[in-house]
Amino acid sequence: MPPPIIILHQTQLGQNIGMCARAMLNCGLDQLRLVAPRDGWPNPAAIATAADADVVLAQTQCFATLAEAIADCHHLYATTARPRHQAIPVLPVAEAVQQIRAQPNSTSSDQQSAILFGPEASGLDNNALSHANALIHFPTNPNFSSLNLAQAVLLFGWEWRRAQAQPIAHSVPLTAAPKKELHNFLNRLENELEQAEFFLTPELRPETLRKLRSLFTRTQASEQELNLLHGVITALKKT
Amino acid sequence: MPPPIIILHQTQLGQNIGMCARAMLNCGLDQLRLVAPRDGWPNPAAIATAADADVVLAQTQCFATLAEAIADCHHLYATTARPRHQAIPVLPVAEAVQQIRAQPNSTSSDQQSAILFGPEASGLDNNALSHANALIHFPTNPNFSSLNLAQAVLLFGWEWRRAQAQPIAHSVPLTAAPKKELHNFLNRLENELEQAEFFLTPELRPETLRKLRSLFTRTQASEQELNLLHGVITALKKT
Repeated sequence: MPPPIIILHQTQLGQNIGMCARAMLNCGLDQLRLVAPRDGWPNPAAIATAADADVVLAQTQCFATLAEAIADCHHLYATTARPRHQAIPVLPVAEAVQQIRAQPNSTSSDQQSAILFGPEASGLDNNALSHANALIHFPTNPNFSSLNLAQAVLLFGWEWRRAQAQPIAHSVPLTAAPKKELHNFLNRLENELEQAEFFLTPELRPETLRKLRSLFTRTQASEQELNLLHGVITALKKT
Repeated sequence: MPPPIIILHQTQLGQNIGMCARAMLNCGLDQLRLVAPRDGWPNPAAIATAADADVVLAQTQCFATLAEAIADCHHLYATTARPRHQAIPVLPVAEAVQQIRAQPNSTSSDQQSAILFGPEASGLDNNALSHANALIHFPTNPNFSSLNLAQAVLLFGWEWRRAQAQPIAHSVPLTAAPKKELHNFLNRLENELEQAEFFLTPELRPETLRKLRSLFTRTQASEQELNLLHGVITALKKT
């Protein structure tokens, strides 16, 4: 099974990216992706704090949008200090790790999971969260729960590494399509709804699209199921 | 049971002390002690990185020597990236936490444990290690094991917090004396050996004293047992 990819979304400080890389490598993770880092990429401040984890930074990929960063991933877990998003299941980090490990390989390709971490000050916004299959919660002190970015990355990596020594609890029959197939479907759905003049109140449109994305993300649909959904749209248009 | 005390030995950067305080409070730990921090105490750089964990810094105690810092503690665990000290048992952090939780309260006082973390660049020297009842090892990536100071403190705290949700595995019949009683004994032993012209080669004296300290530390002697050892010395002197 491929280890999870760590994705840092709109990180502000390069030094935090470096500290995340170090924490990742401490736990044997080396696949790092960035989405729209504030100060651009590459960033010398990251190299300074990575200690000798420059092997991680050297292969780090940078993307303009979250959708591009997760296009080839199958499952996205978003970390949050405040699990308040109603439509997405919330898992303590240790359970999330067990779920990731229980995902079987499909016959054609591995099921790639990615873990998403938000910007330092604000965390992930609802738009980013709507891409997630599940939210990861770190059960820290409820009176002082806010983790530094690299600390959160470390705790995920630590739990991942910890779990490698344990047997896999169970296996879920699930072969989700790559996210790019889901995005194709969602984009088509949006276009079709546009043409159907579904968005009568323009200011509600973003929120409506987020709800749809979150809903279909939760299905963890396979490629065959997405084809089915495409067929449903095509069929409905004919009525 | 009192939560463990975190002791930072000869920490160089105030910002790291602040990050340690934040990581501690994330995990519900709030007893912090410093031994000879390089830049003195209090240190504004610590407050800047502690986020809102200033409650921890406000009650942090600062000591000139390690012996003073642990005088009222009963068990000292030292963290190390390179567990190479032959005479001291080494425990993975999760096992160390179980051992600490298994220590019973004595009738007169709680058994207080403390966790020792060394300076950023070099880690703990042999002199400091010789005070430890056991060494704590963090099973990170063997090819990239060096943890940032606050990351190590976080992982200890995380494992401590994680364990609170689990039943205590077993209980060890052990009521170690406070360290100050052990130090009294070791100081007396050194004086007696001095008088007995035991230290024929002056340059070997520090290493010999470290070995003795490590040996007697490992016994986890109770006050009654230390009294017995005092009696042994007194008796031997009469022969």
